[in-house]
Amino acid sequence: MRADARRNQQRILDAARAMFSEHGTAAPLDDIARRAHVSIATLYRRFPDRAALCRQVAIEGYETVLGEARAAQEVAEEGGPDAPLRAVERFLTGVVDQRSRLVLPLFGGPAFHDREAIVLRHRITGSLEAVLARGRERGAVRDDVNSIDLLMAAAMISRPLPNTPPEWLDTTARRHIAVHLDGLRPGATHHLPGPEPEHAFSRETPTAAENAPTEHRA
Amino acid sequence: MRADARRNQQRILDAARAMFSEHGTAAPLDDIARRAHVSIATLYRRFPDRAALCRQVAIEGYETVLGEARAAQEVAEEGGPDAPLRAVERFLTGVVDQRSRLVLPLFGGPAFHDREAIVLRHRITGSLEAVLARGRERGAVRDDVNSIDLLMAAAMISRPLPNTPPEWLDTTARRHIAVHLDGLRPGATHHLPGPEPEHAFSRETPTAAENAPTEHRA
Repeated sequence: MRADARRNQQRILDAARAMFSEHGTAAPLDDIARRAHVSIATLYRRFPDRAALCRQVAIEGYETVLGEARAAQEVAEEGGPDAPLRAVERFLTGVVDQRSRLVLPLFGGPAFHDREAIVLRHRITGSLEAVLARGRERGAVRDDVNSIDLLMAAAMISRPLPNTPPEWLDTTARRHIAVHLDGLRPGATHHLPGPEPEHAFSRETPTAAENAPTEHRA
Repeated sequence: MRADARRNQQRILDAARAMFSEHGTAAPLDDIARRAHVSIATLYRRFPDRAALCRQVAIEGYETVLGEARAAQEVAEEGGPDAPLRAVERFLTGVVDQRSRLVLPLFGGPAFHDREAIVLRHRITGSLEAVLARGRERGAVRDDVNSIDLLMAAAMISRPLPNTPPEWLDTTARRHIAVHLDGLRPGATHHLPGPEPEHAFSRETPTAAENAPTEHRA
């Protein structure tokens, strides 16, 4: 893709994310093109339909979360018994800080099951599983929490609540994270009820995804 | 209000809650009347405009949360050092169980600042403050968490995440609550960052509310 085509694509994605956040995923494509300062023809050349645009916004969201999960994994590998919990803190606060990039999947819109989406989700849970494994090894993290619990916690904590001023959202999220980190220490008295979550998407395997439809790839 | 008028009003509110949940607060009033099996004239007689209808759905939501907060307060007053944490558990799981009644305020819509809304919110935080005070007294709850933290936790945990099957939502919420309860025990190593949240509405006082507009009362 040429540099100017890539720039246009990124402008459209940024405009779509902003419009989806303000007006939902039914926001008119005309308005998205206008906000991106491109013609509607340019938008359709990059994204043949709304589903293709939604999908790419969701994929960018997963890439953002994966970046945070990998940064956390690096922290967990550092020395010291407190590194794994610092890694979880890094992940949860990182996702909160990036929440404006996570309009999809956090705010709704369709779920995507093509190969790229499945592989990204597997990499995210893989990195988080590595963080938790390191924590259990070092006796720093309770042993009944899994990567899906952690990912769902990040989603709950980062999703903005209505009628809440932005400055309170951040304070509230950071305070909730502090309580959560203390709850993740070993020596739990409240054991996690089952069944252990393997969220629908964790049952997807990248191998199965090889045969999944890819028609929504932008 | 006569019995049939009261029944109609409740039917309209139930239909509005369902429509707001599925289509947002801009859902056509005609469709709400149809779903409630009442004429649009009956709807307008009970609720002169959309704001009045939204407000009453929100008020019913607050009443539901207040019911859960008061039930928790009763549990906290029971004997034993573990009663206060059981009370918090009662509150958080109660709100999760009632989430379909909390479409507003959880899903957006305007904030209401009339006397009835303010008094309800004060009663909710008052009951939660009593639960936490009992917990601190008995050395069962960390001393840096306040009622707004607890209310925001309930909101975060009970708000459904998109693309997540209902059965997983409940499991995920219950597991998050278990971690949170362990995090609320004394002996915290992750201290809550400031500033301590006094959410916008906690600065409202019922006295100030005496002079607040009440034009939206249904």
